[in-house]
Amino acid sequence: VVVGLDPDLGRMPPCVLPDLPDEAGDPAAAARSVTDFNRAIIDAVADLVPAVKPQVAFYERLGLDGLEAYAATIEHAHRRGLLVIGDVKRGDIGSTAAAYAEGHLGEPPPATGRSGLTADAVTVNPYLGRDGVAPFIECASRHGRGLFVLVKTSNPSSGELQDLAVAGDGGHRTLHEVVASLVARWGTEAGVGASGYSPVGAVVGATYPDHARRLRRLMPHAIFLVPGYGAQGGGAADVVPCFDRRGLGAVVSASRSVLYAWQRSGEGDRFTEHARLEVQRMIADITAALRRSGRALGG
Amino acid sequence: VVVGLDPDLGRMPPCVLPDLPDEAGDPAAAARSVTDFNRAIIDAVADLVPAVKPQVAFYERLGLDGLEAYAATIEHAHRRGLLVIGDVKRGDIGSTAAAYAEGHLGEPPPATGRSGLTADAVTVNPYLGRDGVAPFIECASRHGRGLFVLVKTSNPSSGELQDLAVAGDGGHRTLHEVVASLVARWGTEAGVGASGYSPVGAVVGATYPDHARRLRRLMPHAIFLVPGYGAQGGGAADVVPCFDRRGLGAVVSASRSVLYAWQRSGEGDRFTEHARLEVQRMIADITAALRRSGRALGG
Repeated sequence: VVVGLDPDLGRMPPCVLPDLPDEAGDPAAAARSVTDFNRAIIDAVADLVPAVKPQVAFYERLGLDGLEAYAATIEHAHRRGLLVIGDVKRGDIGSTAAAYAEGHLGEPPPATGRSGLTADAVTVNPYLGRDGVAPFIECASRHGRGLFVLVKTSNPSSGELQDLAVAGDGGHRTLHEVVASLVARWGTEAGVGASGYSPVGAVVGATYPDHARRLRRLMPHAIFLVPGYGAQGGGAADVVPCFDRRGLGAVVSASRSVLYAWQRSGEGDRFTEHARLEVQRMIADITAALRRSGRALGG
Repeated sequence: VVVGLDPDLGRMPPCVLPDLPDEAGDPAAAARSVTDFNRAIIDAVADLVPAVKPQVAFYERLGLDGLEAYAATIEHAHRRGLLVIGDVKRGDIGSTAAAYAEGHLGEPPPATGRSGLTADAVTVNPYLGRDGVAPFIECASRHGRGLFVLVKTSNPSSGELQDLAVAGDGGHRTLHEVVASLVARWGTEAGVGASGYSPVGAVVGATYPDHARRLRRLMPHAIFLVPGYGAQGGGAADVVPCFDRRGLGAVVSASRSVLYAWQRSGEGDRFTEHARLEVQRMIADITAALRRSGRALGG
């Protein structure tokens, strides 16, 4: 389980918004609240999860101040021993993809008093084909980091392109199956480690379990990043097909259901406890579902 | 013609790198050089072009300092009366896409002493389908701004997914033709103005002129953003099919061939003159090609 850090000022408890900053009116104050909120959440779940997943869009929304909060969040997660998956969904042509890769997976800037944007893994969009993805694989491999290529996303309209039937020899495959085959090939080329996994993972939404089953077979060496659990409607049984027989190979992400768990009780000043309880509940839920499926519990 | 601002410290003239900063060693100094360079280029071409197109990857590469340079570049271009196309290629699920849209197309932060990331148009990746694009259209429409959806990109491997044959009623279409049909529909839904264009444009690479011809017919109301001219190999004849019969409807972008035109002569201290001359040469080149094709010269 990983916790997605998608900060939404409108849903944060009053105790982290002491001056009730108006988001539009004072982005610097808003960004400070975001950093405070994220640090508290990270401290509350650091012993339960291997990683956090900040979604950079919610930081870019606050402009430069928001990106400082993004960097501060990465820094704090690293300090607490967590890996960071930067959910940036970048993708561009070769030389440009290389610049993105250096910015998000390369060496962090030296000690100039400012944090960098460097995460341990990022999400990457495959629409531009191999030369939009290869620079990320190269940079990740060089630095011992990783990436997750969007294969089948969790949103309602993901099928509009991703489920299109692609004509090929002897029948049809969906576009996301074509992407899955590319991910498998790129992963093998990049190298499969002693763990059985390559640095090239895949984003596979919890909201489409039947697709996940086929995708698990198509990408045996890819770690799946699985969004869509919780607020988006995916349940524990839905994420089971993303795991392999060893009960490994998938990280299930939840954001809103964890961050804003306090809203169910209204106990804003206990938001970290509620977040922690929700993560524990989620781990128990998924563990039970894996056990029911007959998978080992490798984690 | 629009000028792409893809700053590469390794190709900038010595006169804007007075302290020869080591990019990895001092990102703040590097970012200041980028800002100085961009401002000089903008001043040199402001009366020749309607817009500049900063590619955000080259700024993110320099971390937070780089993003300050991105914001300062947008601010300077606006001060010189230019439109700014933020080449950000974002795309995510609904609520996240809305956050990106607010960050890049929404209201800029108020006067808190810091510039925002808000451009006049951005590039958007369609892989997540309608609900990854709709929030950008909604935000752009609300603020009188626009977007360019990636349809057929200019890179060598763009065909790997974009040219796949998609099975449908009575034959096959390529994936990029399917995306083009969606762009046309979304544009009609968003509204076609008195100009004949909608706020939903398309990225169509100069490197695939045969595809451009068909795409122009499929998206009659879309403005084409055409990368790939110059350093990537596209010539004036290749971009002609992106224009409509009126000689309108396309903006052709060149980055490296303009920014680093000084390298052909080695006259680093005259880099702005060389950039200006290259833009003039490019305008003349494309104008002549449009004339040869029999199109009107609407611009």
